Amino acid sequence: MTFPVVGMVGGGQLARMTHEAGIPLGIRFKLLSDTPQDSAAQVVSDVVIGDYRDLETLRAFARGCDVITFDHEHVPTEHLRALEADGIPVRPGPEALVHAQDKGVMRARLDALGVPCPRHRIVSDPADVAAFAAEGDGFPVVLKTVRGGYDGKGVWVVDSAAEAAEPFRAGVPVLAEEKVDFVRELAANVVRSPHGQAVAYPVVESRQVNGVCDTVIAPAPDLAESLALQAEEMALRIAKELDVVGHLAVELFQTRDGRVLVNELAMRPHNSGHWSMDGAITSQFANHVRAVLDLPLGDPRPRARWTVMANVLGGDYPDMYSAYLHCMARDPQLKIHMYGKDVKPGRKVGHVNTYGDDLDDVLERARHAAGYLRGTITE
Amino acid sequence: MTFPVVGMVGGGQLARMTHEAGIPLGIRFKLLSDTPQDSAAQVVSDVVIGDYRDLETLRAFARGCDVITFDHEHVPTEHLRALEADGIPVRPGPEALVHAQDKGVMRARLDALGVPCPRHRIVSDPADVAAFAAEGDGFPVVLKTVRGGYDGKGVWVVDSAAEAAEPFRAGVPVLAEEKVDFVRELAANVVRSPHGQAVAYPVVESRQVNGVCDTVIAPAPDLAESLALQAEEMALRIAKELDVVGHLAVELFQTRDGRVLVNELAMRPHNSGHWSMDGAITSQFANHVRAVLDLPLGDPRPRARWTVMANVLGGDYPDMYSAYLHCMARDPQLKIHMYGKDVKPGRKVGHVNTYGDDLDDVLERARHAAGYLRGTITE
Repeated sequence: MTFPVVGMVGGGQLARMTHEAGIPLGIRFKLLSDTPQDSAAQVVSDVVIGDYRDLETLRAFARGCDVITFDHEHVPTEHLRALEADGIPVRPGPEALVHAQDKGVMRARLDALGVPCPRHRIVSDPADVAAFAAEGDGFPVVLKTVRGGYDGKGVWVVDSAAEAAEPFRAGVPVLAEEKVDFVRELAANVVRSPHGQAVAYPVVESRQVNGVCDTVIAPAPDLAESLALQAEEMALRIAKELDVVGHLAVELFQTRDGRVLVNELAMRPHNSGHWSMDGAITSQFANHVRAVLDLPLGDPRPRARWTVMANVLGGDYPDMYSAYLHCMARDPQLKIHMYGKDVKPGRKVGHVNTYGDDLDDVLERARHAAGYLRGTITE
Repeated sequence: MTFPVVGMVGGGQLARMTHEAGIPLGIRFKLLSDTPQDSAAQVVSDVVIGDYRDLETLRAFARGCDVITFDHEHVPTEHLRALEADGIPVRPGPEALVHAQDKGVMRARLDALGVPCPRHRIVSDPADVAAFAAEGDGFPVVLKTVRGGYDGKGVWVVDSAAEAAEPFRAGVPVLAEEKVDFVRELAANVVRSPHGQAVAYPVVESRQVNGVCDTVIAPAPDLAESLALQAEEMALRIAKELDVVGHLAVELFQTRDGRVLVNELAMRPHNSGHWSMDGAITSQFANHVRAVLDLPLGDPRPRARWTVMANVLGGDYPDMYSAYLHCMARDPQLKIHMYGKDVKPGRKVGHVNTYGDDLDDVLERARHAAGYLRGTITE
């Protein structure tokens, strides 16, 4: 056995940070990227430029890889089955990944497992949305295309049947869900290996602004231990039942009446786990690599009392580098993670991590740095 | 100002780990490497294959770089001056770097600064070595070629003039030094930026086996605070007086009579600082990048009570990867850093870091992992 080749499909920031985490392991990392300018393509040695939607491109890329894993969930399921038929391990495999690709499949499976979810069903047109609303507490209702949505895209909150026309225009099945009365969003991150070892990171609180993750606090403050345990066990059970290999993020609603409901699943390193790069003994990226290689997993426990991750979004100023001077001088413990992306307003171009014993201080430092880099804070 | 390009000369493991540390900063990293198989060339996107001893190769490489820095100290001084004349910042600069290249120049400068060193002088032949011995406590005497030695190479310990012929054969000036009666070796690591900001890492103990660094303990156990402070101040003063930019490692002898004497200087990230990758708030590699870019430096303080680094040397078994299974399963907190090098007996191919509150435990875990990877421990 020699050092294996991990093939990563997709050149985004998750691939970039997975490469960073793989370097110390001495493994070979091969990237399939849309363009040479993609986030990960800028920092990886062995890059193939090509379209993951093309099966022959994928097949050619996979030759010489010991395992294939993903920066995103958009590779067609039938392509993944073809790679498996070629004898290439695909992790997570297509039968697991479909639950992160198709929200209809995901909801049906979680229902079958008895995992608590928001009330939901597939709807066929605006009149059917009105019927779904009437079956429960009425409007508002959340509508989601079952495939293709992320960061608030492909998601609508509608107050009437008249507002519900838009989601049906794409011709993709539409899932209706109750608008959950939640007090906050949580995420349970777990990593599972092919032979079934699994580790759970502490449950985190994820704060959204305009449908995009703004801040993550690890661990989630003031979370009852019983609820934390329930969320961790739920994530571990989903990972096992769905045969997930690699990182699984379970996004959760904490309801006003003290329950946790599953919002979304992601089967790859996830924004809600970025805190682990500086805040955990083993980062989500390092553990994802270990999992897909079927190596023993690393300790997921936190290294600090509190760790806060704040996403850096693009603002009006294209030059974020010059903001480093102030941010680094102000906070010598600040951890900046930039993705090599062009700045566009609202685009996730990086994140910062801070950690320490005092949550207010740790939060303030993360928010200040993210705001200063974006240009919304100027002192 | 946009994200800068750091040009790294040399494709060894220090370049590899500097790239790893630079990824989160979003900078561009360009590598000049001897071969595509070199440690860093395996993991960097933008690689030029060429010979750093050829000025035109260096010049072509430097075009488009915002700053040049180094994996090693072997680039000829006159080449560095030529790059500076071309307007490319070279960090550390040639006037600083010569002190890490030429042990004769280094000793003369440290003498002028009043920095305590072992008794020493340049010697011309074996008879002169005998004279040098007679001027002090006699044999043994340490002989070093002033250029080109590392890890015990280019260093001889001789017990008589008759044994002293070998070092003179290369035609390079030879430095004679007293064999210091030391109780242990220490290292003071500091990083300095062009505008003069500097940070000091805690002084570490470095344990050698057969002239090669085996283990580093951070901080050095049972080191009197006054001596630690003296060593840190000495390193900061040397960095300032020699106008070092980037990382400076000052290797020290702690003598039986309670003094610290300078053994060697290295002006690049250094083996004695590898512990900082997992044990300090900011690693030596991250701070080296920040320094050469004249960014504010990161906090060098330790994150754990004790951190131990153990070098992984090549043994009789070429396949280290299969040893990961046992090492990772035994110690989920273990940090492995492999360099992508072919295993050859005695060659440094990686290191491991461990940290925690109990030094005996931390030492045992590091030694076990390094020994198991090498193949000298089999259970």
